[in-house]
Amino acid sequence: MTITLAENYGFCFGVKRAIKIAEENQNAQTYGPLIHNAQEIARLKRDFNVELSENLGVFQPGSTAVIRTHGIPKEELETLHARGVHVVDATCPYVTKPQQICEEMSVAGYDIVIFGDEHHPEIKGVKSYASGAVYTVLDVQELHTLRLKEKVALVAQTTRKVEEFLRIADALIVEHKEVRVFNTICNATFENQDAVRDLAKTSDIMIIIGGKNSSNTKQLHSIALRECPQSHHIESYTELKQEWFDGKERCGVSAGASTPDWIIQEVIDAIKAF
Amino acid sequence: MTITLAENYGFCFGVKRAIKIAEENQNAQTYGPLIHNAQEIARLKRDFNVELSENLGVFQPGSTAVIRTHGIPKEELETLHARGVHVVDATCPYVTKPQQICEEMSVAGYDIVIFGDEHHPEIKGVKSYASGAVYTVLDVQELHTLRLKEKVALVAQTTRKVEEFLRIADALIVEHKEVRVFNTICNATFENQDAVRDLAKTSDIMIIIGGKNSSNTKQLHSIALRECPQSHHIESYTELKQEWFDGKERCGVSAGASTPDWIIQEVIDAIKAF
Repeated sequence: MTITLAENYGFCFGVKRAIKIAEENQNAQTYGPLIHNAQEIARLKRDFNVELSENLGVFQPGSTAVIRTHGIPKEELETLHARGVHVVDATCPYVTKPQQICEEMSVAGYDIVIFGDEHHPEIKGVKSYASGAVYTVLDVQELHTLRLKEKVALVAQTTRKVEEFLRIADALIVEHKEVRVFNTICNATFENQDAVRDLAKTSDIMIIIGGKNSSNTKQLHSIALRECPQSHHIESYTELKQEWFDGKERCGVSAGASTPDWIIQEVIDAIKAF
Repeated sequence: MTITLAENYGFCFGVKRAIKIAEENQNAQTYGPLIHNAQEIARLKRDFNVELSENLGVFQPGSTAVIRTHGIPKEELETLHARGVHVVDATCPYVTKPQQICEEMSVAGYDIVIFGDEHHPEIKGVKSYASGAVYTVLDVQELHTLRLKEKVALVAQTTRKVEEFLRIADALIVEHKEVRVFNTICNATFENQDAVRDLAKTSDIMIIIGGKNSSNTKQLHSIALRECPQSHHIESYTELKQEWFDGKERCGVSAGASTPDWIIQEVIDAIKAF
């Protein structure tokens, strides 16, 4: 039986980069979780003594704070610097970009519209970089309640769908003289979905690895099921059953965005051992 | 019988302004036709000795050139100035705007996409103000043949439909990091259409005035017919028939974009005389 990994799976570029940064900063504390995976957070603590803190107050002068991929509000970053904390920035570059755009567009006199969820840490951070008028919307209806200037800049939460972003952009373009549209959407989530669909088409069994309550893993499993009825969603290799693989020739493997490579490798090793 | 003019009809703001400028500059020559209406051009010649010239060569030092509403290419304007011609600019401000945008966006390092017809005088003029890469497209397919930079500025021919403009904008936004969208569409044509529709709904006869081969007048007539079956398209008051108005109570009047007010007034006077 052949085992094939999806062309895109698991951690995105930004999470991989953040974990590498954390590993290079032993004894540091991350401000907020680097990743929504308890096993990986436990591994960073065990192997690198990198602890998680949700509280800004615990960071003492001389200590090291690793800023998580979603970024943090500008004021909190300034507080850490002012307190003499050594700040290591693991903010995803795809999130740093809309932060910079907000800062620059405010200075240039644009009203800013952010297409995203105002309660999400990424958007709290991005929004904090605007010094002028800034609004967060999730649909076109919300735009109608705003009193925007003629010149508007538009950015998006990195994980939003481009089709929905275009609906916001179109509504603004009709009403305003200038709309400066920054496509800050990151395709990592969608690339994982496209890759699992392609792989499932040519597989007779699919193994999707990720937390049972991880919504993006459930989504991958549901896409795989449509193309390959023998698709299984597992959290770790201990759930694998040998009989699943009887008579199968092509096994496809993918993993949710919070699933570390070492958990995936354990699953592949176990399948090979059957 | 009441006679009601549509809320918007006839000349747009830019054409009205250009004719006023021509009237204030007796003995001048317009470079290109101010308006696509032979009767109005003849009136300017007869009453104000303002002649039409299609040839740049005829403008001598000290003579006065009236620049038409569509504008002209930057190089031609420079030629006139260099030759010592007195230039009176009747370019519509809604056309000057995309000219300025092209100039500024080139300097700011943006590739420029113009949504419009490259053979139209307005677009020849607008395009001439770009000093860097500039492309003219009429549909999304044409975009795929271009090699654009990450930063793109988009402007539109003033008479285009906003729905088609959005299709171009959307295609660019999906593919590019930044798209600076300038909505340079002028709504005059669409305002005339909306107004004739509204008026026809409450009229029992509609008179639409304009050249028999004027496409925008035919469009107005066709919209009026849908709401009011007694809708007539005429070029001048001489075509009116008294029996059309027998038993009618509410007469609506509109006119195409090249129909001067005095022709409309002649029609209204004739209807009143019945």
